[in-house]
Amino acid sequence: MGNRVAVVGVGMSNFGELWEKNLREITLEAGMMAIFDSQVSGSDIDALVVGNQSAGRFTGQEHLGALAADVGGLGNLPAYSVEAACASGGAAVRQAYMSIKSGEHDTMLVFGCEKMSDVNQSEAMNTISVAADWEWEGMFGATFPALYAFMARRHMLDYGTTEEQLSKVTVKNHANAAHNPFAQFQRPVPLKVVMRSGMLADPIRVLHSSPITDGAAALVMCSEETAKKYTDTPIFIEASTQASDTLALHDRESITEMKAAKISSRQALDRAKVEIKDIDVFELHDSFTISEIMLTEDIGIVEKGQGGPALDEGLTEIGGKFPVNTSGGLKARGHPIGATGVAQIVELTLQLRGECNGRQVDGAQRGMAVNTGGTGATSIVHILGRD
Amino acid sequence: MGNRVAVVGVGMSNFGELWEKNLREITLEAGMMAIFDSQVSGSDIDALVVGNQSAGRFTGQEHLGALAADVGGLGNLPAYSVEAACASGGAAVRQAYMSIKSGEHDTMLVFGCEKMSDVNQSEAMNTISVAADWEWEGMFGATFPALYAFMARRHMLDYGTTEEQLSKVTVKNHANAAHNPFAQFQRPVPLKVVMRSGMLADPIRVLHSSPITDGAAALVMCSEETAKKYTDTPIFIEASTQASDTLALHDRESITEMKAAKISSRQALDRAKVEIKDIDVFELHDSFTISEIMLTEDIGIVEKGQGGPALDEGLTEIGGKFPVNTSGGLKARGHPIGATGVAQIVELTLQLRGECNGRQVDGAQRGMAVNTGGTGATSIVHILGRD
Repeated sequence: MGNRVAVVGVGMSNFGELWEKNLREITLEAGMMAIFDSQVSGSDIDALVVGNQSAGRFTGQEHLGALAADVGGLGNLPAYSVEAACASGGAAVRQAYMSIKSGEHDTMLVFGCEKMSDVNQSEAMNTISVAADWEWEGMFGATFPALYAFMARRHMLDYGTTEEQLSKVTVKNHANAAHNPFAQFQRPVPLKVVMRSGMLADPIRVLHSSPITDGAAALVMCSEETAKKYTDTPIFIEASTQASDTLALHDRESITEMKAAKISSRQALDRAKVEIKDIDVFELHDSFTISEIMLTEDIGIVEKGQGGPALDEGLTEIGGKFPVNTSGGLKARGHPIGATGVAQIVELTLQLRGECNGRQVDGAQRGMAVNTGGTGATSIVHILGRD
Repeated sequence: MGNRVAVVGVGMSNFGELWEKNLREITLEAGMMAIFDSQVSGSDIDALVVGNQSAGRFTGQEHLGALAADVGGLGNLPAYSVEAACASGGAAVRQAYMSIKSGEHDTMLVFGCEKMSDVNQSEAMNTISVAADWEWEGMFGATFPALYAFMARRHMLDYGTTEEQLSKVTVKNHANAAHNPFAQFQRPVPLKVVMRSGMLADPIRVLHSSPITDGAAALVMCSEETAKKYTDTPIFIEASTQASDTLALHDRESITEMKAAKISSRQALDRAKVEIKDIDVFELHDSFTISEIMLTEDIGIVEKGQGGPALDEGLTEIGGKFPVNTSGGLKARGHPIGATGVAQIVELTLQLRGECNGRQVDGAQRGMAVNTGGTGATSIVHILGRD
């Protein structure tokens, strides 16, 4: 068991419209917090990786690996970025996991970041579209709300999912975010308000959709041996898996399931040698509320088609049997694209350490994060646990 | 020694202005060629990684991992992109190396690609600038030729390097590219023509600078055990190292050396347990001819300041003691940003297999690739060898 990889430090900037800060400031902020939290010295960090989708378009800056090493005063260590659309953060976590497992690195700083509010909304929508199939979808005007609307409408037709159920995801996640001091929207929102919010692409409304967000999140990850020097309660990565699906939605056998998430979550459960009922807390990629509903089905919390009714029963609330998005999720914590997958791991780590105050899942021992990209063309799953 | 990582297949598209092809076509082309070359079946590939800098700005498409898996018909395997500016290709190779070493993957497809000619030249220059420090350099008009001009001018002042020596790199690399059927410029160019070419940023002329290029390169990499099933002559990665430097040029102690390249090449030689004289063939990052001169010094082929005179002596020509850029280098093979680091490994693999025809280094047993990003803020070094 000496080959395990642990998370020993977490940090994040506030998520929101951070007009007064630039990309390097929020990234530095998250990184410093993770280093302080871990009590690892900056000089013990031997590599870093940044999850980011579109800094080149949002801010005119790529080469974020070298940037983070530079502004962090971390010297000449190896540094690079990884990108897998909205799953870029999860990809960064997974790269660090493999790098440490390979023995090439021992202690790594993992960033996720995105500064989205420095461009106008039209350019922001165009930039987000780089995650779908530009030549077959984006170029013809198929925005992300439009693509997810196809999925939602089909799910409603096939399984009787209702607009009310789509809206209950929002109500739940906003209620959770009210207890998360880093979330973009730290306030509950009534069902009625969600159901009357502006229509983006029928049946998807503004409040069924994650917002434009600036933010950064960071982790210190290291080998088991090193982890035990710094903490008595390292959180271990019990499984890290990834799968892909067709880039374009129209090429899929089914648009009501996320096949990549199905495959990667199944593999993760197998590798961690656990069943879905053994997972105490979940962070699922709710870029749109229909995604959370589909993911609860695809990872096996409920049968296909039962994601809607599960919300009526409160199954995925804190206090329910399978709490989902205790952080507020992408919907209410916010969705700074490249930061999201890392922020999911921040939340699970805090949950497993029992440090989530008003949103704590009692006695949480094991958590799962599902970070998807595009309309589900990428899925990255991590299972975290404590001994 | 059972833990080694090998290159068993190589492929690349033609490098050049490929108006009639899109990013996915050239990527597919390089990948198919690498798979055919390796004789590995597509279904044996268990993950892929893409090195790319700016597809989001150049073509409107990110999420290239899922894209490559999709267009390659490779199914649901894990796929993602890595970015480290002009060293993105080298970063992809290094990620695959670590992933295979970690045991998470066994046989990987590694891509590098960039489609740069679909935007106008002004937008291309702006997009390239994402690799430098946008807030402290690019935003104020410091283009890459301008930044490298500072380095070149200082090198001339401190060490007596001449315009003729800057130009001899071009002459050498074009002469080599004349024997590379995939190169952008397959023709020699006389010294006089280089020295009279248009001035970009004194002392850097058009023909001291790498061109705007479309292109893709690909590798099949796998564990030693698997490699031996497919080939009697696997090429092994004897070392993979990486280092960073400040993003902005003005923050460096010296602008006439590339510290990250110095560190990472030293580490690579140590890990491979060889000395610089044991390396038979080099691919060095000549985005500008001054970079090649500086790198020959920083990796220890010659003493600092002797990079210019080494050209007068023919030390780095094919047939010289330390042949550099037999492929034609970035200058003449072309520089499709994310593809370059992978194309360097393609060239070294072909050299070590003895398949380079008119540009073959006789009896080459070991090669080194140095792939740098920005003005040297990232350096990634690989040493390849055959048993």
